[in-house]
Amino acid sequence: MASKNLFLLAGDGIGPEAMAEVKKLIKAMNDKLGSGFATDDGLVGGCAYDAHGAAISDADMAKAMAADAVLFGAVGGPKWDKVPYEVRPEAGLLRLRKDMELFANLRPAICYPALAASSSLKQDVVEGLDILIVRELTGGVYFGEPKQIIDLGNGQKRGIDTQVYDTFEIERISGVAFELARTRKNHVTSMEKRNVMKSGVLWNEVVTQTHKARYADVKLDHMLADAGGMQLVRWPKQFDVIVTDNLFGDMLSDIAAMLTGSIGMLPSASLGAPDAKTKKRKALYEPVHGSAPDIAGKGIANPIAMIASFAMCLRYSFGMVAEADKLEAAIAAVLDDGLRTKDIFSDGMKEVGTVEMGDAIIAKF
Amino acid sequence: MASKNLFLLAGDGIGPEAMAEVKKLIKAMNDKLGSGFATDDGLVGGCAYDAHGAAISDADMAKAMAADAVLFGAVGGPKWDKVPYEVRPEAGLLRLRKDMELFANLRPAICYPALAASSSLKQDVVEGLDILIVRELTGGVYFGEPKQIIDLGNGQKRGIDTQVYDTFEIERISGVAFELARTRKNHVTSMEKRNVMKSGVLWNEVVTQTHKARYADVKLDHMLADAGGMQLVRWPKQFDVIVTDNLFGDMLSDIAAMLTGSIGMLPSASLGAPDAKTKKRKALYEPVHGSAPDIAGKGIANPIAMIASFAMCLRYSFGMVAEADKLEAAIAAVLDDGLRTKDIFSDGMKEVGTVEMGDAIIAKF
Ligand SMILES: CC(C)[C@H](C(=O)O)[C@@H](O)C(=O)O
Ligand SMILES: CC(C)[C@H](C(=O)O)[C@@H](O)C(=O)O
Repeated sequence: MASKNLFLLAGDGIGPEAMAEVKKLIKAMNDKLGSGFATDDGLVGGCAYDAHGAAISDADMAKAMAADAVLFGAVGGPKWDKVPYEVRPEAGLLRLRKDMELFANLRPAICYPALAASSSLKQDVVEGLDILIVRELTGGVYFGEPKQIIDLGNGQKRGIDTQVYDTFEIERISGVAFELARTRKNHVTSMEKRNVMKSGVLWNEVVTQTHKARYADVKLDHMLADAGGMQLVRWPKQFDVIVTDNLFGDMLSDIAAMLTGSIGMLPSASLGAPDAKTKKRKALYEPVHGSAPDIAGKGIANPIAMIASFAMCLRYSFGMVAEADKLEAAIAAVLDDGLRTKDIFSDGMKEVGTVEMGDAIIAKF
Repeated sequence: MASKNLFLLAGDGIGPEAMAEVKKLIKAMNDKLGSGFATDDGLVGGCAYDAHGAAISDADMAKAMAADAVLFGAVGGPKWDKVPYEVRPEAGLLRLRKDMELFANLRPAICYPALAASSSLKQDVVEGLDILIVRELTGGVYFGEPKQIIDLGNGQKRGIDTQVYDTFEIERISGVAFELARTRKNHVTSMEKRNVMKSGVLWNEVVTQTHKARYADVKLDHMLADAGGMQLVRWPKQFDVIVTDNLFGDMLSDIAAMLTGSIGMLPSASLGAPDAKTKKRKALYEPVHGSAPDIAGKGIANPIAMIASFAMCLRYSFGMVAEADKLEAAIAAVLDDGLRTKDIFSDGMKEVGTVEMGDAIIAKF
């Protein structure tokens, strides 16, 4: 591995606190294992807006593009609720996804055994749950044009968003889903609303063709997205890999995350296409949870999702599979030991803060 | 009440079986209470396509427009999976909604006490649950243009759908939500994705204005739709009335329905604006469940959602509030007696078929 340049965008709210634990971990890996990571910090979201009026500066964008991987915390908070749409905190994240062409968003929803009881779902429904949502991330209604508000006069306005998907976009995201399914239970469920949306009709058609042409060994099911949401709540263990578009993926992955009772625990990876020459993928890793402004700065945020995102980074960007496995095992071990941050606390467990949790995981690693 | 003309569109799958129970009920009400309902039957969905090549004929559309209320069963099934998009079964339902201008879709998600244990969620999370989802039904990505698949050549196609909302559409649906909240716990939560969608920005703005101008006495919250989906799964009792757009409403109402463990039990009402002269609203009532082709014709379908939809019809189209209350109480009583169709069966209960369940409810009514 020629370089291991990490660009860190901690962002707003609990982002910096969570990122601080990953920084400690990186330092420990460099010191003890000679892992050779180099890190640089940038600004994204509300803090970037405060510093220079944009949700991410061009200079930081350039660093993100050049890095081997980006670690991203969280963005947003009530402080920036009224800033103009174009420079709102989320715009920084959306620009990163779009400019880095991170079309494949991998969101594992796993239920940590130690936490099965803390889900709002019955224990037998979620125990052992392990699904992977593969969400298309650079297309659909997030980026399609026209996207605007028109003043029609007479006190009337019109808000317009456009959902657009081209064959190649559906082909490449379903390819990612099928490849990943082969490393798991070999089962993909594709979700859309083909009964209402033309993009859903095309989605269904292209996934079916891609399956037939290149992945006929994988079991493929199609489900309408609304029925899929219901089935996630009813019996989530029927799924292995779910592949879906940007907006449905946003909804469904949040619901899947919540099922596990571990929303503060879940990581995600956003990957680009492999470079033709170097074979490297651009990549960004971020927790599924948000910036949680209500608990920011109190030292009680759960750093596990951020640390688990770094584990995905080790796995997907640096091929450090053994280290990734070890880090994930360290997280599980600390939970087995009864350590809990406030968000996942339950009777009989030991409540710890962000730093203590980070330290404990690093100690087990 | 001048007229009580009901137009019955039983549709496909279990639709006709469920509708048969409502027909028996209507006959009983006419015979014993002199309720004076007149009914007429039409075709919608796959059966309409088989009969005359369209998902609903113009003649039946005209009858639906003229009726005081439409009762709708369910549409679709594998038999029609390959029919052209324009005449697929769902097109009949979508045409009814659009041509009758049924912009307000009311979807109560209540948890019948007798069924609280059969939810996949923990009993304390859903017991006593009573939320009302108010879904916009004639706008958004369901109907916006352009909606098409373009052949780009080179084996590439482009699928396009357009989400469009005008001020007046958001205003009238939020008015319905606020009015209904006043008859309940006086709390509305509006859900959109204003951080990504311009229609979401407008939605948020217009709901806020409508609230300020006319409903300041109602508690109003805003939530991003993805976070809303999570909160529904985490702690649904925080909600009273949820108002949201067509597509989010489709997803969120299905999820809310599934939470209750009573998906075969939940009704919906789709209402138009009150006529300027007669004050009457066009209206269609339908179960939330689908056509369930796998169990169609077996006599085991649960007719409760269809019967409960008729209760909503009594309430909203005919002001027969006492009768509606009584019918809903009859449903609850039969469940308390331990009668269960197969979909909601649990140990120690008495399993009954569609007809037996219908008879039992009518007997209690
Ligand atoms: C912050 C927001 C723009 C983002 C999205 O909608 O994609 C978030 O909800 C997510 O899922 O990563
Ligand atoms: C059948 C389908 C077109 C419909 C919808 O998407 O609105 C259904 O899912 C519903 O929720 O009523």
